Amino acid sequence: MSEDYRTEHTPQPTTLNLSGDVAELCAQIIDIFSVSGHETELADAVEASLNSREYLSVTRDGDSIIARTEWGKKQRVILAGHLDTVPLPHHPESKGTVPSQWCEENGAKKLYGRGATDMKSGVAVQLALAATLQHAQYDITYVFYDHEEVASELSGLARLMRHHPHLLNDADFAVLLEPTHGTIEGGCNGTMRFWVHCQGIAAHSGRSWVGKNAIHAMNDVLNRLCSYEAQTYEVEGLAYREGLNAVQISGGVAGNVIPDKCSVHINYRFSPKHTLEEATAHMRQVFAGYELDFVDQSAAARPGLDAPLAQELITAVGEEPKPKYGWTDVARFSQMGIPAVNFGPGDALLAHTDDEHVDVEEIYHCFTSLKEWLSQK
Amino acid sequence: MSEDYRTEHTPQPTTLNLSGDVAELCAQIIDIFSVSGHETELADAVEASLNSREYLSVTRDGDSIIARTEWGKKQRVILAGHLDTVPLPHHPESKGTVPSQWCEENGAKKLYGRGATDMKSGVAVQLALAATLQHAQYDITYVFYDHEEVASELSGLARLMRHHPHLLNDADFAVLLEPTHGTIEGGCNGTMRFWVHCQGIAAHSGRSWVGKNAIHAMNDVLNRLCSYEAQTYEVEGLAYREGLNAVQISGGVAGNVIPDKCSVHINYRFSPKHTLEEATAHMRQVFAGYELDFVDQSAAARPGLDAPLAQELITAVGEEPKPKYGWTDVARFSQMGIPAVNFGPGDALLAHTDDEHVDVEEIYHCFTSLKEWLSQK
Repeated sequence: MSEDYRTEHTPQPTTLNLSGDVAELCAQIIDIFSVSGHETELADAVEASLNSREYLSVTRDGDSIIARTEWGKKQRVILAGHLDTVPLPHHPESKGTVPSQWCEENGAKKLYGRGATDMKSGVAVQLALAATLQHAQYDITYVFYDHEEVASELSGLARLMRHHPHLLNDADFAVLLEPTHGTIEGGCNGTMRFWVHCQGIAAHSGRSWVGKNAIHAMNDVLNRLCSYEAQTYEVEGLAYREGLNAVQISGGVAGNVIPDKCSVHINYRFSPKHTLEEATAHMRQVFAGYELDFVDQSAAARPGLDAPLAQELITAVGEEPKPKYGWTDVARFSQMGIPAVNFGPGDALLAHTDDEHVDVEEIYHCFTSLKEWLSQK
Repeated sequence: MSEDYRTEHTPQPTTLNLSGDVAELCAQIIDIFSVSGHETELADAVEASLNSREYLSVTRDGDSIIARTEWGKKQRVILAGHLDTVPLPHHPESKGTVPSQWCEENGAKKLYGRGATDMKSGVAVQLALAATLQHAQYDITYVFYDHEEVASELSGLARLMRHHPHLLNDADFAVLLEPTHGTIEGGCNGTMRFWVHCQGIAAHSGRSWVGKNAIHAMNDVLNRLCSYEAQTYEVEGLAYREGLNAVQISGGVAGNVIPDKCSVHINYRFSPKHTLEEATAHMRQVFAGYELDFVDQSAAARPGLDAPLAQELITAVGEEPKPKYGWTDVARFSQMGIPAVNFGPGDALLAHTDDEHVDVEEIYHCFTSLKEWLSQK
């Protein structure tokens, strides 16, 4: 993401109105351009709006922000979300924003715009809660971070965990406001990707027996993939369905040459029943005899739904929790020893699409559920 | 081959000395640039040298030439070769020739240069025979043609067969002077290439069960390929080994997407025991249930070694004939009903290489064998 999408930088932070309607706030946030690597304007606006609340202790790191209440409660909850979006729909060359748009569809009010789903509606809920909850039953740590939509090594959340572990690791539970359509999605499957390469010996295909066909050699790998029975594991009451798939394959150079190279790219999505090490060992067993050339290895996260804090949230939301199949940053909290769930407005299937939008009722539902849970007693 | 490799055209044809040493003649021919599509200068030189022989009736068609004796013999033999070469070694940008070079290696004299093997040494033998054989036991049809090294639809030999069938189809036997290391190679295997496509349904790999994996679907095709036992068929005393191979495979778009397309490119080399139609039907049977997207289908050629003319040539050459595995223009003669064999100087494995060269003794051996055979009685 080295391309510069913007021509000018606003020195005065845009003022966000945290005290009005949370959906209106979401539209304001959508209207601030924040493609990964260009989160500064939005981070400035978020920081300024939080700084004006005397009950929040605000720390800025790059374009990430931690805002903590220090009420002295026995337990602490993290509410986390990322500020960045993927590039603009249909406007890869655009240097500004595409304004948010309101629509009425089948009697339901919808808000369109980049980030409406992933996850500026979640960020709006975080900010509205920060402005509303001047007291609560738990201390709250609000976390806003940059660079979620790009390579893992750029992650703003990972950077905060390295630079400011003491501001994060005293939490007892975390809610990541990624889009879950208003249902709690517990934990997440882990994911790993690796290449398997088969080597052959090139030859003219008129004398194929002189060579060794690398594509034919790959047949054994595909046989193992196809005969593999992906399992579903129940973890803390949620059923995590796994998947083992070839996602890319390539081999061969010309129509008259026996191919000397064939490579297959494999993606394994594994349940939180297994650690990253266990899942890796399992793949080495399935593909015994082959070298696995890993390009990505991310641990799964247990749902943490047995935590009392989680049970309270489930009651407040009023819907049966589901497992999260895609990998999310809940895994980073989980690795820090903090049980975490995904719960946010918007349909994850609309994330990154040109048609990205959020049902306004979902924003209200998420805001109300979290507010009710946090202000109980 | 649209690029123009030459800047000037010589209006006066270069004079070839057909009456001197046949290896010297080969060097002269190598020194005339004739990459496919640029055969005019060499064709002019060949035509001029043949026109000067009153016992030859010469026909020119584009850059192809047919020169016939009309001695009234009971039988007629074709000696055929192509004038074009693949582009120059290490000189893709060259607009002239790279001069031929003589070397002495381990006591053997070698001639280096583009076309030394494929097949200007064969063309030199043809021309030397045309100059030497003012009488012979058979009538002789010398055929020189353009565009052999490029797409089949450009073939100068195929064009001659369309435009002048009566100048060719009265032959009883044909010798194609492609490089065979001085041994007769009978007929040739046929070849066909086709793609098999598997269609899937794209999905996020975190929810792979929502999609259908096209690479996994291709496993069935690879299983058929790998369990296929390629046969060897004896045809007229020669053993033709077949081959069925995946030569290219591709599928998938990204590390987190279930691939919706996978394609494999398959090459079948089949013996002259089977017609093109039979070989095609066989492939449809092997890959029953799949659509075969053909890109190339070329019939095999029977060796024709049972023809009395072939037996005489075998005696003159004095070595056990072998089968030809690669496809050559003998298949075109065979389809015209003319038995044909490959017999020429040079190692086919050196063809098209930067190291292309011919052992001078092989040129003499080929010239002497053909001369002895044709001038018998």
